[in-house]
Amino acid sequence: MSPKELLEKYKNGEISLTEALEKFPDRGIEEMGFATIDTDRLSRTGLPEVIYASGKTVEQVKQIALRMVEKGIDLLATRATPAMFEAIQEVVPDAHYNELAQTITYKHHETEVPATYIAVVAAGTSDLPVAEEAVETAQFLGNRVEKIYDVGVAGIHRLFHRLDVIRRARVIIVVAGMEGALASVVGGLVDKPVIGVPTSIGYGANFEGLSALLSMLNSCASGVSVVNIDNGFGAACQASLINKLT
Amino acid sequence: MSPKELLEKYKNGEISLTEALEKFPDRGIEEMGFATIDTDRLSRTGLPEVIYASGKTVEQVKQIALRMVEKGIDLLATRATPAMFEAIQEVVPDAHYNELAQTITYKHHETEVPATYIAVVAAGTSDLPVAEEAVETAQFLGNRVEKIYDVGVAGIHRLFHRLDVIRRARVIIVVAGMEGALASVVGGLVDKPVIGVPTSIGYGANFEGLSALLSMLNSCASGVSVVNIDNGFGAACQASLINKLT
Amino acid sequence: MSPKELLEKYKNGEISLTEALEKFPDRGIEEMGFATIDTDRLSRTGLPEVIYASGKTVEQVKQIALRMVEKGIDLLATRATPAMFEAIQEVVPDAHYNELAQTITYKHHETEVPATYIAVVAAGTSDLPVAEEAVETAQFLGNRVEKIYDVGVAGIHRLFHRLDVIRRARVIIVVAGMEGALASVVGGLVDKPVIGVPTSIGYGANFEGLSALLSMLNSCASGVSVVNIDNGFGAACQASLINKLT
Amino acid sequence: MSPKELLEKYKNGEISLTEALEKFPDRGIEEMGFATIDTDRLSRTGLPEVIYASGKTVEQVKQIALRMVEKGIDLLATRATPAMFEAIQEVVPDAHYNELAQTITYKHHETEVPATYIAVVAAGTSDLPVAEEAVETAQFLGNRVEKIYDVGVAGIHRLFHRLDVIRRARVIIVVAGMEGALASVVGGLVDKPVIGVPTSIGYGANFEGLSALLSMLNSCASGVSVVNIDNGFGAACQASLINKLT
Amino acid sequence: MSPKELLEKYKNGEISLTEALEKFPDRGIEEMGFATIDTDRLSRTGLPEVIYASGKTVEQVKQIALRMVEKGIDLLATRATPAMFEAIQEVVPDAHYNELAQTITYKHHETEVPATYIAVVAAGTSDLPVAEEAVETAQFLGNRVEKIYDVGVAGIHRLFHRLDVIRRARVIIVVAGMEGALASVVGGLVDKPVIGVPTSIGYGANFEGLSALLSMLNSCASGVSVVNIDNGFGAACQASLINKLT
Amino acid sequence: MSPKELLEKYKNGEISLTEALEKFPDRGIEEMGFATIDTDRLSRTGLPEVIYASGKTVEQVKQIALRMVEKGIDLLATRATPAMFEAIQEVVPDAHYNELAQTITYKHHETEVPATYIAVVAAGTSDLPVAEEAVETAQFLGNRVEKIYDVGVAGIHRLFHRLDVIRRARVIIVVAGMEGALASVVGGLVDKPVIGVPTSIGYGANFEGLSALLSMLNSCASGVSVVNIDNGFGAACQASLINKLT
Amino acid sequence: MSPKELLEKYKNGEISLTEALEKFPDRGIEEMGFATIDTDRLSRTGLPEVIYASGKTVEQVKQIALRMVEKGIDLLATRATPAMFEAIQEVVPDAHYNELAQTITYKHHETEVPATYIAVVAAGTSDLPVAEEAVETAQFLGNRVEKIYDVGVAGIHRLFHRLDVIRRARVIIVVAGMEGALASVVGGLVDKPVIGVPTSIGYGANFEGLSALLSMLNSCASGVSVVNIDNGFGAACQASLINKLT
Amino acid sequence: MSPKELLEKYKNGEISLTEALEKFPDRGIEEMGFATIDTDRLSRTGLPEVIYASGKTVEQVKQIALRMVEKGIDLLATRATPAMFEAIQEVVPDAHYNELAQTITYKHHETEVPATYIAVVAAGTSDLPVAEEAVETAQFLGNRVEKIYDVGVAGIHRLFHRLDVIRRARVIIVVAGMEGALASVVGGLVDKPVIGVPTSIGYGANFEGLSALLSMLNSCASGVSVVNIDNGFGAACQASLINKLT
Repeated sequence: MSPKELLEKYKNGEISLTEALEKFPDRGIEEMGFATIDTDRLSRTGLPEVIYASGKTVEQVKQIALRMVEKGIDLLATRATPAMFEAIQEVVPDAHYNELAQTITYKHHETEVPATYIAVVAAGTSDLPVAEEAVETAQFLGNRVEKIYDVGVAGIHRLFHRLDVIRRARVIIVVAGMEGALASVVGGLVDKPVIGVPTSIGYGANFEGLSALLSMLNSCASGVSVVNIDNGFGAACQASLINKLT
Repeated sequence: MSPKELLEKYKNGEISLTEALEKFPDRGIEEMGFATIDTDRLSRTGLPEVIYASGKTVEQVKQIALRMVEKGIDLLATRATPAMFEAIQEVVPDAHYNELAQTITYKHHETEVPATYIAVVAAGTSDLPVAEEAVETAQFLGNRVEKIYDVGVAGIHRLFHRLDVIRRARVIIVVAGMEGALASVVGGLVDKPVIGVPTSIGYGANFEGLSALLSMLNSCASGVSVVNIDNGFGAACQASLINKLT
Repeated sequence: MSPKELLEKYKNGEISLTEALEKFPDRGIEEMGFATIDTDRLSRTGLPEVIYASGKTVEQVKQIALRMVEKGIDLLATRATPAMFEAIQEVVPDAHYNELAQTITYKHHETEVPATYIAVVAAGTSDLPVAEEAVETAQFLGNRVEKIYDVGVAGIHRLFHRLDVIRRARVIIVVAGMEGALASVVGGLVDKPVIGVPTSIGYGANFEGLSALLSMLNSCASGVSVVNIDNGFGAACQASLINKLT
Repeated sequence: MSPKELLEKYKNGEISLTEALEKFPDRGIEEMGFATIDTDRLSRTGLPEVIYASGKTVEQVKQIALRMVEKGIDLLATRATPAMFEAIQEVVPDAHYNELAQTITYKHHETEVPATYIAVVAAGTSDLPVAEEAVETAQFLGNRVEKIYDVGVAGIHRLFHRLDVIRRARVIIVVAGMEGALASVVGGLVDKPVIGVPTSIGYGANFEGLSALLSMLNSCASGVSVVNIDNGFGAACQASLINKLT
Repeated sequence: MSPKELLEKYKNGEISLTEALEKFPDRGIEEMGFATIDTDRLSRTGLPEVIYASGKTVEQVKQIALRMVEKGIDLLATRATPAMFEAIQEVVPDAHYNELAQTITYKHHETEVPATYIAVVAAGTSDLPVAEEAVETAQFLGNRVEKIYDVGVAGIHRLFHRLDVIRRARVIIVVAGMEGALASVVGGLVDKPVIGVPTSIGYGANFEGLSALLSMLNSCASGVSVVNIDNGFGAACQASLINKLT
Repeated sequence: MSPKELLEKYKNGEISLTEALEKFPDRGIEEMGFATIDTDRLSRTGLPEVIYASGKTVEQVKQIALRMVEKGIDLLATRATPAMFEAIQEVVPDAHYNELAQTITYKHHETEVPATYIAVVAAGTSDLPVAEEAVETAQFLGNRVEKIYDVGVAGIHRLFHRLDVIRRARVIIVVAGMEGALASVVGGLVDKPVIGVPTSIGYGANFEGLSALLSMLNSCASGVSVVNIDNGFGAACQASLINKLT
Repeated sequence: MSPKELLEKYKNGEISLTEALEKFPDRGIEEMGFATIDTDRLSRTGLPEVIYASGKTVEQVKQIALRMVEKGIDLLATRATPAMFEAIQEVVPDAHYNELAQTITYKHHETEVPATYIAVVAAGTSDLPVAEEAVETAQFLGNRVEKIYDVGVAGIHRLFHRLDVIRRARVIIVVAGMEGALASVVGGLVDKPVIGVPTSIGYGANFEGLSALLSMLNSCASGVSVVNIDNGFGAACQASLINKLT
Repeated sequence: MSPKELLEKYKNGEISLTEALEKFPDRGIEEMGFATIDTDRLSRTGLPEVIYASGKTVEQVKQIALRMVEKGIDLLATRATPAMFEAIQEVVPDAHYNELAQTITYKHHETEVPATYIAVVAAGTSDLPVAEEAVETAQFLGNRVEKIYDVGVAGIHRLFHRLDVIRRARVIIVVAGMEGALASVVGGLVDKPVIGVPTSIGYGANFEGLSALLSMLNSCASGVSVVNIDNGFGAACQASLINKLT
C-alpha cells in the first residue's frame, strides 16, 4: 500500500488506527540496533537528540556519538565519564569535556545566539556540578548565560548584590540543595519565569535531594516550576525554549 | 535616623546589615494583624497578591478580600469554598465563583491580553478541577486560553486530533493524574515550553499524586518542568510570565 | 491539503512529523467538551472505553454514559456511587449496579464467552469489594469466572481444598491485602499466569496497601505480575486479554 | 525493706538495679487508673504536666483536668475540642478556650514574667492555628510574646519591616508551611536561637508537612533547630526554657 | 481416587504435588461463600479463628459470628463498630462489647487460665484503645492480665513505681505512640520477652505510627520484638502463646 | 505410619492438618544443607528452578549449578558475576554467559519453541541490561523473541516505525526507566497483554526505579501489569507462561 | 550525703527525683571514656552486653573486647569485619569468627543448655548471613538450634518436608527476604511463637528489606512478631528469653 | 544614583523594591567566582562563615580556606577528608584535623569562653563521629564542653551515674542513633533545653537515621528540639547561641 492511500483508508474505516500508525512512513530515524537516533528531534521540539550517558557502556556512547556527528547532528553527552570522553576523542578529536559538569560537547558550526540571556543562580559551591551542567547545556543550545554562584539565603545580602544581573535575564535557573529556599526568595523578587533545580547536596534528612525538591515544589512564590533533582540539563532545555520565544 | 543616611552608614560599616534592613522604609505593605498584604507584588513579580483560602477561616478570607478590593487590587482566591464565596459576595457583590475550580475572582478593569495563548491540556475528565484552576488563573492574569480536555495517552489519536491547537500555543500546561505520561508525549511533539501539573487522581499506588509527580519530574522529553500536585494555579502563574515575555 | 497527500509530503520531508500528526484524519473520537470518548478503543486494544467515575461529577458520569450507550458502546463505570447509578438509570433504565463492587454495567447484546475461565481468588472477606470489581469487569468483558474467596495463607488447607478449580483456570487473579502472601503461594503451585491485586485492607503498617503491593512485586514465585492497589478492574482487563488469546 | 537500706544494699550488690528501682519511693505521682499524673514535672523539668487531648475521650480529659486543678497544678490542654472545653467548664468554670489554637488554660495565680520576650513569626495566615498554639503555650508558661504574622519570603520586605522586633527577642519561633524557607531566611539574619515549626499547610507534595519539615531540618542557616510538624506547643516549651535561662 | 491411594501415588511419582494437594481431604473448613471459616485453627495454631471486622459489612460480620457460635467456636471480633455489635446481639444475646477496645466477645465456657500473667504497659492515656484491644484479646485467649497505664518515659519515675508488677510477668506487652521509647526502656530493665505495639498517636511527623514503629524496630534493648501499628490483638496472640508454653 | 493411612486418618480427624503435612511424602527435593533444590518446579509451575545469584557466595552458586546439571535440570543463573561464571565453567564447561544481562545458561537439549513470539520493547539504550535479562530468560524458557530497542516516547515516531512487529507478538514486555510512559502508550495501541518492567535508570527523583514503577502501576491503559524494578527475569517468566497457553 | 539518707530525703520531698537519681550508687558500669560497659546487663535482662561493631573503629572494638574478657564477660561482637577479628585475636587468642554471620565469639565456660530448641527457618540461600547471625547468637546465649534452610513458599513442599522439626521447637525464627511470605505460612501451621526477621535480599522494590518487613508486620497469621531488617541477633535474643522461660 | 538617594526614592515610590535591593551597597562579601564568602556572618548571626566541605573539590576547599584566613576569619571546615587537610596545611600550617569528627580548624586568637558549659551526651560508641563534630564545633565557637558518652537507655543506670554533670549544663546536646530514645529520657529529667541529633547508626529499618529522627521529633518530653541527621555541627551552633545568651 502506497503512503498516498494509507490515511484515506483509515478515514474511511477500512484500516484501524494501529494499522495506520504501523504504516507511517519511516523518516527522522537512525537505526543502530541497540539505539534508535531521533534525527528529527531538533526541528520538532527545538531541542536536539542528546546522549544521556549514564547506564550506557563506553562503547555504546562512542558509537552513538560517532553516528550523530557523521549525520551532522551536534553532540551533547551528559553524565559522561572521562573514559567516555577519551573514547569519543578517538573519533571526534575536537570534542570538548567539562569535568565538573561531566558533559562532552561538539558543534559543527557556531549558531547565532539571542541578545537576551539565561541567569544560572547557584546557592552554594557544592551545587556547582549541577549548575555547570545547566550552563554547558544552555550554551550548547545557543544561549548566552550569566553565572551567579554561592548566593544562598544564609547570607541574603550576597543575593541583593547580584540582583540586577538576575532581574535583567529573560529566564532564571536557580540551583540549590539543602532546603532549596533560594528558589522561593528569587521567585518573590523577579518578574521572570524561575526554574528550580534541586540538588542532592546536604546532610542526612536531605534524602538525596528530596528536601530541596519538595521545597521548590511547595514554593510560596508563584512563578516557580521545578525539574528533577540534579537535572541541570533539563532546566537548561526549558530555559532555552523560553529564551528563544519570539 | 532618616532614610537618607541609612545606606550610607551601612556602606561605611557603621551599622550592620540587619540594622540596615530593619530600617528599610515601609512601603507596599497593608497590615491587618492576622495578615500582611503584599501590595507591591504585581509590580515586582508580574503576579499579584492572591488569597490561598485553604486553612483560613471564612471571616479571614472575607476581610482580606475586602481590604484588597478597597486598595484597588484585583481579587483571586483559590481553594475557596461556597461559604467563602457567600461571605465575599456580601462585600464584593460582583465577585465570580467557579465551583469546579474553587476560585473566586473579581477584576476592577479588564486588562489587555496578548495575542498569543496558553494551551491547557488535560488527560482525563477527572482532572478538570485542576485544569479549570489553571484556566481561571491564566485568564485572571490576562491571558487567552485554549482548552484541550480528555486526551490521555490511552487513546493517543485524541491528542493528534488536537495537536495543531496545542502546537500553536506560546506555552503549554499539561494536567494529568495516574501515570502522567501525557506530559512526556506532548513534550516530545512540540517546540514550546511545557509545564506539567500532576494531579491526585488515581487508584491506590498513585499515593495522592506522587506517581504523576515523579513521572513528570522524570520525563524523558527535555523541555518539561513541573509544579506541585494539583497546583493549577502555580502552572498558570509561570505560563503567564512566559506568555507575556516580550 | 487532502489526506492523500499528507503522508506523501511527510515522506518527502516537505512537512514535519508534528504537522503530519496534526492532520491525522479524525475518526474514533466522540467530542463532549469536558470528555473525549475513544470509540475506537475496543477494536484497537480488545478492551472498550470505560468510565472511571472517581473524581467526576454525577452529571459528567451521566452524560458520558448516555452518549456511550447512544453510540452503541457497552457501558462499564467503576468506582461509581449509588447517586451516579440513580442518575444513569434515568437515561439507561436497564443498567445494573453491583454495590459491593461499585460498578455500573449495561450491555447491548450478550457476547459469546470462551470455554476457558478466569479464577478470582481472594484472601479474606474484607478483600471482596476489590475481588467483585474484578469479577464484574471480567464478566462484562465476556469471560466466565470462578470465585474462590477467603482462602488466605493463615489457614492454607482452605486453599488446597479449592486448588483444583484454581489450577484448571486459564489465568488466575489473586486478590489479597495485609501481607499479600497468597499470590506467592498460588504462584508456586500453578502453571498459569497469576496476576496479583494488592488491597488496602489491613492494620497500620499496611500503609493503605503498600505492604501487599511490595509483597507481590517481590514474589519469590516467578510467574506473578501485579496491578495497582485495589485495581480489580485492571487485573480483569489483562486477564481477559490472556483468556481470549487464541 | 525501709528506704534507708535500699541503696545501701544495691551498692553492696545484694540487690539488683531493677530491684532497687522497683523499691523507689513513690512520690510525685497521682494515680487515676487510666492516667498517671506526673505532679513532679514542673520542678524537675521546668515545664508542667500538660494534657495532650488528642486521642482521649471527653470524660478522660475532664477527669484529668479536674484532678490537676484540685492538686494545685495549672491547667493546659492542647488539641482540645469545644466539647472538651464545655466539659471542663463544668468543673473549672474560669478555664479559658482559644478556639484557633485549640487550647484550654487555667492558672491558679499569675506568675512573674521575664523582661525578655519570645518572638513568634508566622509565614502565612493559614499557619495561625499552629502559631497561636505556640503563643498560648508560651504565655501559659510565663513568657512575654511578640507576634509577627504573614511575613513569608514571597514578599520579603514584609519581613524587613518587622526585623527589629524579631531581632530584639531572646529566642525566635518560626512557624511556616509550604517550603518553610522563612526559617532559613530569619536564621541568616539574627544572632538568637531559632526554633522552626513546620506546618501541614500546602498543596499536594507538601505531604502533610513533610516538605516544610525537611526544609527546616536542612536549613543552610546554622542556628536553627526544629520541632514536630504543627507542634507549636513543643516549640514554645523549648523557647520558654531558653527565655528563662539566667 | 480414594484418599488412601493419594499420597502413595504422589510418592511413586504418578501424580504431581499440586494434584496431591488438590485431593487433600476436606476438613476443618466451614464454607459460607463470602467466607471460609478455619474451624481447625485453634488446635493447629493455639489461636482460634477471629473476625477482623474492618472492611466487612455489618451483615457479613453477623453471619460469620452466628455460624462460628453455632459451630461451638468462641467469638472474638476486633475493630467492630457499635452497629456490628447490635447486629450480633440479635443472634448472640450474651455477646459482650468493649467500646474503647472495639471488640466483641462471647465464650461458650470459661477456660482455665495459667498462674502466670501478661503485663500490658501503656505509655499514655491516648494509647488505651490499643492497650485495651490487647487486654481483651489476652483475656479471651485465657490469660491473666495486669494493666500498667500512662507510665511514659517523660516521667520515668512513674515506671519505676510499677516496675515490680512488670518484672513479675511472664511476658510484657508495651504499647506506645509518639517516639515509642518506652519499649526500649522497659526492655533494658527486665529479663522477660517484650512485645512492642507502636500506636498511631502523635503529632505530624508521627506519620500515623511510623515513628513509633521504627523506634521499636530499632530498639537498642535486645529482647524486644514488634507487631503492626495499633495491633494490640496480634501482640496479645503472641503473648498468649508464650504465656502458655510449658 | 505408611503414606496410605495418612490422609485417611486426617479425614477421620485422628491426626491434625499439621501432622498430616509433616508426613507428606518427600519427593521433588534435592537437599544440600545450605540449599534445597525444588526439582519438581518445572512440571508444577511450568517454570524451572533458577539460581538467583545475588547474595550468594561464588562457591554456593557453583555447587548449586553443578547439582542441578547433574540432576538433569537446565541451568539459569541471574545476577551472576563474571567470577561466578568462571567457577561454573570449571564444572559446566559449556555454560554460556551474557555479560550485559548478567545471566549464565546451560541447556541439556534444545526444546521446541512455539510459533508465536514475545516482543521485548525497551525505551532507551540504558535499559538494555534489564531488557537483555528478559530476552535471555525468555529464550531459555523456549520462546522466540523480537527485540525493539530505544523507542521511548520522547520520539514517538520511532515506536510507530516498529509498531507492526510489536502488535503481531502474542505478549509484550515493555522495559522503561525514567517516567516509564512507554508502557501506557504501547498498552493503548495493542490488543495483547503488556507486562511492564520499570528500570532504575534515571536522574534523582527516579528514586532507583520508583518513578517508573508507580507510573506503570498507574497506567491509564487497562491491559498492563507490572513486575518488580529491573526484574526482566520475572517478566519473561510470565510472558512465557502466556506465550505457551494453548 | 550517704546512700542511706538519699531515698529517705527524696521520700520526704527534701530532694528532687533528678537529684535522687544523680546520687544513685555507681555499680555495674565499666567506664572507658569512649564506651561505658554495662556489666550488670546479663543479671538484669537475661542477655549480656554485646558489641555492635558497625560504626566503631577496629581499635575501639578491640579495646572493648579486651576489657569485657578481662572482667569475665563472655564476648559476642556482631557485624564484625575480618580486620576486627584479627585485632581481637591478638588479645583474645581463642576467639572464634563466623565469616558468613560476621560474628566474633568467646565464652569463658560452656553453659548448660535447655532441652528445648530454637528453630531457625530461612527462605533462601541468600538469607543465610542473617540466619547464621541468629544461629550464632542463640548458641552463644546457651540454646540448642535446629537449622531449616531454603524452604521458601515458591516450593512449599520443601517446608512440609521439614515441618515436624519446626513444630517441635519451643520458638521459631523465620528469616526471609523478598516478600517474606514464609513467616505467615509458618505462623499458620504451628502453635509456637514465631519471630520474623525480614532480610534485605531482593530486586528493586524490595527497598532494602522494606517489602519483607511490611509483609511480616502485616502477617495474617496471628502469632507472629517481627524484629528489624537483617537483625538475626535481635531475633535470637528474644527467642532465647522465650526458650529459657520456666 | 548615590546610596543617599536610594531609600528616599524607594520610600517615595519612584523606584521599586527590587530596584532598591539591587542598589544595596556591597559590603561583607568576598567574591571568588565559584564562592562568595559571607564575611559579615559572625557579627550578624553570632556564628561565622564555615566551609561545608562535602561536594566541593579539594582545590575549592583549599582556596576558600586560604582566603578566609587571609581575611582574618577563623577556619572551620566540616566533613573534610584527609586530602583536604593536607591541601590546607600547605597554606595554613597550624590548622588542626580531628579525624573522627572530620573537622579542620584554625583560630587566629583564642576567644574568651563563658563559665557555663554545653553537655554532649552520646548513646553509643558508634555515635562518636557525630558527637565529636558537635564537640569540635562548640569549642571552636568558644564554649566549654562536657562529654558523656555511651549512656544509651538499654542500661539506664549509666545515665543516672552521669546525670549530675548533664543537669548542670546550660544546654544539652543528645546524640543517638537506632531508636533515639535517649533524647526523650534526658528531656524528661532536666530543666534545660535539649537539642537532639539523630544519627544514621543502626540496622536496616533505621533507614539511614530516619528512625532516630522521627523518634526525636515525636519526643514525649516537651523541651526537645531536633537538627538534621548526623548534624553535630548544627546542634553545636544552636547550643552555642543559647550558651552565650546573657
